[in-house]
Amino acid sequence: MTDSALSTASADALASLRETAPLVQAITNRVVTGFTANVLLALGAAAAMVDIPVEAGPFARKASGLLVNLGTPGSEQRDAMLEATEAATEVGTPWVLDPVAIGSAPVRTPLAHVLVDRRPTIIRGNASEILALAGAGNGGRGVDATDDVEVASDAATALARERGSVVAVSGPVDLITDGTRIARVGNGSALLTRVTGGGCALGAVMAAFAAVAEPFEAAVAATAAYCIAAEDAAVRAAGPGTFAVHFLDELSRIQPGDVRARAAL
Amino acid sequence: MTDSALSTASADALASLRETAPLVQAITNRVVTGFTANVLLALGAAAAMVDIPVEAGPFARKASGLLVNLGTPGSEQRDAMLEATEAATEVGTPWVLDPVAIGSAPVRTPLAHVLVDRRPTIIRGNASEILALAGAGNGGRGVDATDDVEVASDAATALARERGSVVAVSGPVDLITDGTRIARVGNGSALLTRVTGGGCALGAVMAAFAAVAEPFEAAVAATAAYCIAAEDAAVRAAGPGTFAVHFLDELSRIQPGDVRARAAL
Amino acid sequence: MTDSALSTASADALASLRETAPLVQAITNRVVTGFTANVLLALGAAAAMVDIPVEAGPFARKASGLLVNLGTPGSEQRDAMLEATEAATEVGTPWVLDPVAIGSAPVRTPLAHVLVDRRPTIIRGNASEILALAGAGNGGRGVDATDDVEVASDAATALARERGSVVAVSGPVDLITDGTRIARVGNGSALLTRVTGGGCALGAVMAAFAAVAEPFEAAVAATAAYCIAAEDAAVRAAGPGTFAVHFLDELSRIQPGDVRARAAL
Repeated sequence: MTDSALSTASADALASLRETAPLVQAITNRVVTGFTANVLLALGAAAAMVDIPVEAGPFARKASGLLVNLGTPGSEQRDAMLEATEAATEVGTPWVLDPVAIGSAPVRTPLAHVLVDRRPTIIRGNASEILALAGAGNGGRGVDATDDVEVASDAATALARERGSVVAVSGPVDLITDGTRIARVGNGSALLTRVTGGGCALGAVMAAFAAVAEPFEAAVAATAAYCIAAEDAAVRAAGPGTFAVHFLDELSRIQPGDVRARAAL
Repeated sequence: MTDSALSTASADALASLRETAPLVQAITNRVVTGFTANVLLALGAAAAMVDIPVEAGPFARKASGLLVNLGTPGSEQRDAMLEATEAATEVGTPWVLDPVAIGSAPVRTPLAHVLVDRRPTIIRGNASEILALAGAGNGGRGVDATDDVEVASDAATALARERGSVVAVSGPVDLITDGTRIARVGNGSALLTRVTGGGCALGAVMAAFAAVAEPFEAAVAATAAYCIAAEDAAVRAAGPGTFAVHFLDELSRIQPGDVRARAAL
Repeated sequence: MTDSALSTASADALASLRETAPLVQAITNRVVTGFTANVLLALGAAAAMVDIPVEAGPFARKASGLLVNLGTPGSEQRDAMLEATEAATEVGTPWVLDPVAIGSAPVRTPLAHVLVDRRPTIIRGNASEILALAGAGNGGRGVDATDDVEVASDAATALARERGSVVAVSGPVDLITDGTRIARVGNGSALLTRVTGGGCALGAVMAAFAAVAEPFEAAVAATAAYCIAAEDAAVRAAGPGTFAVHFLDELSRIQPGDVRARAAL
């Protein structure tokens, strides 16, 4: 697929998302729940954070997409993650794993390995997290990446091949691979790193796009749409506060034609 | 009570709220906690989210109003809800039940029925949730209503009569009934549906108004003040991000006279 | 130390914070998590909310600073607090205790006393909370102070001496003491009390400053920088919604020279 074809596919995916308003079940950390839901709503998707045991599994059967984010994995949420991913796998609900801050963390690191064995549709993280998940690094110092995106390229490709997942590595230039194809998305703004949830909410957006496109195209489309909106927000922003607000506005405004014309693939 | 008398009662309720700054105990879901507290503070009430067992009950005895919102009901929060509503009932603290996304959800649905048996002062939900609570529907697909407000009118009236509660059904035109009287509030903005917590925070505002007015008038006053502020915010907004920010500003600015003049009853 | 020397020390502390980007572990309440993380990121620190048992302790060993905020202390978070403060004490990670709404609350009040026995680096609260912690008051009516800052002055000094902690009492004029020195910071805006987390996030900022300055200077520097940014945000604000947004922008913009010139000590 040429870059031009991929831009067109991304634009089409955004058009489909707007038409169908996919319902994303977000089992995510307590820092970014509100922002994540607002990002999904602004973009045109729907959000539900059904993250308790007994309810998470049945909900994953009817959700359009599922996000599992390991940022603050309390015990009930861990059970909900296992329940939801089992159900999603069974019925084919696409799901995204965001292995936040794994590496040496003693609870979330083994949990991430259990979840990756279930073959997520998409795995999204920064370079340190992807290296740790691939068994090739020690993780970052929390939510920040201490490794460069390109350093994680081989690990991402190997991980994608081994699990049949699409792997997306976030950074100044995002790298997305299904083990065979590799796309790089050059859009974005450094201000996204100054807003909590800047990376986490992208995982939820990938889950929304995975409901309307095949996984590789979904990850690329989500990244392109998200990062183009960030560029437009940065133009209007005077700092991270105004940036986050304008970012939501821009997510609600971005059109398929913007993605087609401006995706820096 | 005529519409004009109801407008005046709503305006008076807002004036009382501003004078007394009622303290609302919000046991609510983790997606909307920050937004809910900010809505209460902007309007002139005070907020405290005391939602753990052993503390929730004693606090409900001294709070001015209580909100119980079923959005993410973890096990400790469920215990806190039972404790708080028992205490509230005992001492007469007015309380609001928001049965978020009930219907087929296996934990929150039976919990909602237990809570409704305790006769909430006000029950607030979208049409799908009210139908499900009245035993007349199957619930929505998460937090979105799939049923129309007017379709839920009979169920709302029956529920109100059966429980002695005021029932408020949110939608483009909100419907509020105590089983005898019915009010419709035509104010609002579609942007409220693009901000997470747009409905949930209204439940907290109803709890604040229930501290200063009788339940039917409280639900009407809360809806009118909230939705008029939303109209003013929508005028200034370029999308859901700026809308949410201006909405808080407008809640802090709205005056009793605005409610008297503009309530679309 | 003269007020002028303290202003210079505060400015230097901000410069150090910007250079080193200290990583703050925030074990805080669910209402203010997102805002707290955004405040830290805007200012130039990094944030991680590692608040589950088994992970909280090891993380506190490598964090630059730790915040323990008692706002919504669920059982797992309580265990995480005990684990983290034990580890922090052992390795010398500076930590801040924020005894939110203690007084008569039956879970958090005894927990606060256990934690204060571990000699926090800094204790931050409103006058009612500090009086309750010192055994000299009954606490407020939730998160609001019902007592005046100056009324808590003696209790703050006694508490500081007894525990070897710096004690910071928030109010229109903030009072900070290490038991010998007393500083008062006159900067700020009443709008900080209309945004949820206005006080809680200051505790996190103190933890960030405590990573780059000795505790008394850290508490003063944090308060001065935070409150000067609030003054600038208030100038641009039309209400609490726009205030919170501009506040984040101003935290990202404030320079050491602003602190030196404008700290109202």
